[in-house]
Amino acid sequence: MARINPTYRTLSAGYLFPEIARRVREFEQSHPVASVHRLGIGNTTQPLTPTVVAGLHQRVVALSTAAGYSGYGDEQGESALREAIVAQYARRGVELDPSEVFVSDGAKADAANLQGLFAPDSVVAVQNPAYPVYVDSTVVHGRTGEPDQATGAYAGIVLLEGSPENDWLAEPPADGTTADVVYLCSPNNPTGAVATHEQLAAWVAWAREHDAVILFDAAYADYITDDSLPRSIYEVPGATECAIELTSLSKTAGFTGVRLGWSIVPRALRVADSEPGELNRMWNRRQSTFFNGASNIAQSGAVAALSDAGRAESAELVAGYMANAATIRDALVSMGLEVTGGDNAPYLWVRCPQGLGSWEFFDRLLEQAQVVVTPGVGFGSAGEGYVRFSAFGQAEDIEAAVASLRNHADALLAPAPSAAPVAG
Amino acid sequence: MARINPTYRTLSAGYLFPEIARRVREFEQSHPVASVHRLGIGNTTQPLTPTVVAGLHQRVVALSTAAGYSGYGDEQGESALREAIVAQYARRGVELDPSEVFVSDGAKADAANLQGLFAPDSVVAVQNPAYPVYVDSTVVHGRTGEPDQATGAYAGIVLLEGSPENDWLAEPPADGTTADVVYLCSPNNPTGAVATHEQLAAWVAWAREHDAVILFDAAYADYITDDSLPRSIYEVPGATECAIELTSLSKTAGFTGVRLGWSIVPRALRVADSEPGELNRMWNRRQSTFFNGASNIAQSGAVAALSDAGRAESAELVAGYMANAATIRDALVSMGLEVTGGDNAPYLWVRCPQGLGSWEFFDRLLEQAQVVVTPGVGFGSAGEGYVRFSAFGQAEDIEAAVASLRNHADALLAPAPSAAPVAG
Repeated sequence: MARINPTYRTLSAGYLFPEIARRVREFEQSHPVASVHRLGIGNTTQPLTPTVVAGLHQRVVALSTAAGYSGYGDEQGESALREAIVAQYARRGVELDPSEVFVSDGAKADAANLQGLFAPDSVVAVQNPAYPVYVDSTVVHGRTGEPDQATGAYAGIVLLEGSPENDWLAEPPADGTTADVVYLCSPNNPTGAVATHEQLAAWVAWAREHDAVILFDAAYADYITDDSLPRSIYEVPGATECAIELTSLSKTAGFTGVRLGWSIVPRALRVADSEPGELNRMWNRRQSTFFNGASNIAQSGAVAALSDAGRAESAELVAGYMANAATIRDALVSMGLEVTGGDNAPYLWVRCPQGLGSWEFFDRLLEQAQVVVTPGVGFGSAGEGYVRFSAFGQAEDIEAAVASLRNHADALLAPAPSAAPVAG
Repeated sequence: MARINPTYRTLSAGYLFPEIARRVREFEQSHPVASVHRLGIGNTTQPLTPTVVAGLHQRVVALSTAAGYSGYGDEQGESALREAIVAQYARRGVELDPSEVFVSDGAKADAANLQGLFAPDSVVAVQNPAYPVYVDSTVVHGRTGEPDQATGAYAGIVLLEGSPENDWLAEPPADGTTADVVYLCSPNNPTGAVATHEQLAAWVAWAREHDAVILFDAAYADYITDDSLPRSIYEVPGATECAIELTSLSKTAGFTGVRLGWSIVPRALRVADSEPGELNRMWNRRQSTFFNGASNIAQSGAVAALSDAGRAESAELVAGYMANAATIRDALVSMGLEVTGGDNAPYLWVRCPQGLGSWEFFDRLLEQAQVVVTPGVGFGSAGEGYVRFSAFGQAEDIEAAVASLRNHADALLAPAPSAAPVAG
């Protein structure tokens, strides 16, 4: 007599982005002539670059010949790609071995699955606000109680509270709070905050002291323009003993749809009841059992993206999105809004005016300026009163969105209606 | 203080195929001039077909333009592909809705992950022998005790014993044995057995009576040449209430490396504590949280593979592999070996001669004839004394392998040495 996994009933209703899509769809249906500016989901918009395209075509051609055809590859990724990834880290001064690299179909799956390496009763800590997958996958793994009705926070998850005071990057708990598995994301989604060497070093020291593991999400590392900021947690000595790093080519090279990422599970990594090497072997076993390798076409595209020519082209892509970020920032600041992020990250974190809530300002932006953003509260209770602007988009669309913001500044910045809260 | 997930320590050592690879590597190192014939892993060898190649190229071209570029797609798959899959089922007389189709990167991941929909204490049943992923993922999900030292069977898993007497397809338990989640694979890997309508109907009736769920692996459905045999469990009335079907284009269209599969989670599906629709929504939520969609390039290749032209080409591919199967079968039968399968499946299931064990015959085939097979015991204790021959390969390589088998027939069929068992 089968019964369902009850953790799914613990999950709060909509995943954030489907809920945004629903509201936008409703708006479009009731305003058929309006053109909506989408600065919500962090979805890339620029075409794949020539070097990547050539790499993809080349592999398709190979697969069409008997000599060049290949079927199942290593679940951990093709050697050429693992070596290209090792070389990429070497350029940042980080030495890895290809056996520590696990190619995947993207950072989202790895972010959700890696915590499965740890004991069922592990306590997970996440930044507040954070990418919703960290929390949702923790719930599905059965590591939480029910959500609090007021804040949405799940019992059993340690929230590392971000705020303007700590520049949206919490320090390791000094009050004796313990956690076994800690998600850190830098540059951060949604706040755009970037951890300094000192901040990461403090986390590494804390993890080593407490035998905790850091799951370090570096998906936006290539958006760091300030060379004094770390692009990999392994730039901190000792991090290979306590941190798994996950990342992808989604935001770097436009692979959001092509799907290619990787995780680093260092051989030096260990936890309280394991020797160095065991977690590396466990993830190897996990990937061999639950995964069959990333698409070989995407892997060839990735090798091309990590070549000299590919990296130069990706840098241009990133620079284009960062120019968008500057455009958005200028407009918001000139409107008198409080903005952080957007300098080393493709996200701008904006305090709602007039004490509006996240969804209230979301609705106002949609209805008044036809601009779609992401409500900060969708990333956790600490995001209430904020929204996230994404800098992904064609430059002309960003310009149009910004013009609409400026044109509707008065309505956007108007005091909240005192009678009833804005619908939403 | 993090600790590891102890279920990984419960897993027996090597995953089957890495162990085979190790033995072959060792043999090749000590016999550098020998050329090894690989009939082990079920890995496709024929190039992608022209229609698929065109579909792949076309998408890469689109991704290189601003107008044709696409980033994140629906986690459940692109509409065009989900509709093509619905049309594919319609040709078999099965009516589905696109919302019941979940595109994935292959059947392996789905086979391992789908059981996560059910309660942690669910009892899982598998055919013995079976594809190792069913058992290994059950162990990692924490649903078993330790393996028995003698048989390798994990405590807590119900084994549905196959044997020559039941043509390698067990009937539903009539002795009151219960199970909540049952893996069935037809055409079967490794035995090549195919369930009849009557056999599937008996399983569906049993599942409905016991509120159990069948995870039906149809990865080899396109190898069925006998039109009286069912290619989908949904050809059995009532199956949408109790069965999830998973499959892929790996073996049908050579997508082992390109990666594309799907699962059907019917809206009619329900278990003891759920209403119809809830499991469909749960898998939707699971895929939205743990997955970001299959590669869009692979999805375009899949749409092409499911077109009229693509299906005709795939049928030729399959016919070529089935001609290989006939070649292997003829040779083995003429050697006096007992062979099943290979008529509606790309696998031949062969009883080891002279009472040899699976690994003993594996080693003898490798050492005497340089032919690599898969030891039957690697698929479960009921496979001891058998090996699996795979019909995937270039025709000329299959001919060479078969010639080597015939040339070394005497050594292959010789009595087992009485003094000590063959190494291995």
